[in-house]
Amino acid sequence: MSAESELFTLPARQGRAVRLAKGDAIQIINTHGSQVVDAWVFNAGDMTEFLSNEHMRATLGKLWPGQGDALITNRRRAIMLVEEDTSPGRHDTLMAACDDYRYGLLGCTEYHDNCTDNLHAAMGQIGREAPECPSPLNLWMNIPVAADGSTSWGEPLSKPGDHVVLRAQMDCIVAMSACPQDMLPINGADCNPTEAHYRILPGTG
Amino acid sequence: MSAESELFTLPARQGRAVRLAKGDAIQIINTHGSQVVDAWVFNAGDMTEFLSNEHMRATLGKLWPGQGDALITNRRRAIMLVEEDTSPGRHDTLMAACDDYRYGLLGCTEYHDNCTDNLHAAMGQIGREAPECPSPLNLWMNIPVAADGSTSWGEPLSKPGDHVVLRAQMDCIVAMSACPQDMLPINGADCNPTEAHYRILPGTG
Repeated sequence: MSAESELFTLPARQGRAVRLAKGDAIQIINTHGSQVVDAWVFNAGDMTEFLSNEHMRATLGKLWPGQGDALITNRRRAIMLVEEDTSPGRHDTLMAACDDYRYGLLGCTEYHDNCTDNLHAAMGQIGREAPECPSPLNLWMNIPVAADGSTSWGEPLSKPGDHVVLRAQMDCIVAMSACPQDMLPINGADCNPTEAHYRILPGTG
Repeated sequence: MSAESELFTLPARQGRAVRLAKGDAIQIINTHGSQVVDAWVFNAGDMTEFLSNEHMRATLGKLWPGQGDALITNRRRAIMLVEEDTSPGRHDTLMAACDDYRYGLLGCTEYHDNCTDNLHAAMGQIGREAPECPSPLNLWMNIPVAADGSTSWGEPLSKPGDHVVLRAQMDCIVAMSACPQDMLPINGADCNPTEAHYRILPGTG
């Protein structure tokens, strides 16, 4: 295995962030098959530009991106390309990252790990600061939408080892959080968050 | 007509902002029936707290709010209550406010009025500054969502004179933009943006 394909762990309930040059890609792996990974992408040169679900939906004309689609920023530019997706392709752009407020509303009386804090901690680990917590691309999160607009909290449709490959269309920073949600079945019916993995795939340019 | 019920114009293609005390309400009127009004709500005491669609969807369990629902902030708190909605209740939370980038992608080669700039101009008129342009609650905007997650740009289902009444659950600032979109049929098949109207309804407290 070359240095380029080193397998990194995204620990359960935690976040990580990586820098990618334009042309590099990241492979994000749903190791155990039912783990949601919240993902954010920022323009490395101007952190106020980032993947924005509300802009992406308008550009793509659908609720979630699939293989071949671009991930779109709040300046309506492509920041990543979904080069590969081995899963059934069901992801979510509707739901905010979980946060301490959310777990309080669900009944938690003590601090609960959450994706919002994981984003900021992960960015801190690489010496960067996110200007806010944008609405994340929730990889493998399955939010069925009924005809009347009602939503529900489904279980992932993915299987162990499913992965996506996202290729950078500009120098960017990708942050990921292995969602620590253990009170709703979005990480599987057993409500047991697990680790995921990722690889950096350097560009050939 | 008492001073309290003065009818204000939200001019076609423009924005306005108003301050509301907790308990006050605003009535927003779709005068000609097919005009989308982008709406934002900020906590008057801390503008970094605002109506957030991605948090609201998670709390409400549906894509758009209806009569009796609360509008939810990025701190998962109720900022407004939808007290009345005479329309079929079809609104949108999926699509970003239009902006100059958007009209450029649609083929405009010159500046086009847009809701993002209208938000900032309206806030400036009352001496406030929005920290960002949050994803707006697009009143009467009809975005059909198909079973496969694809979206389309529908015409409003509302009729002339339909209105909503939103009651403030905290001191807040409401900004509105009469969407200047004239290249897609979201403001009616004739693509002709019109003015709307609004009233401030003081609380009885």
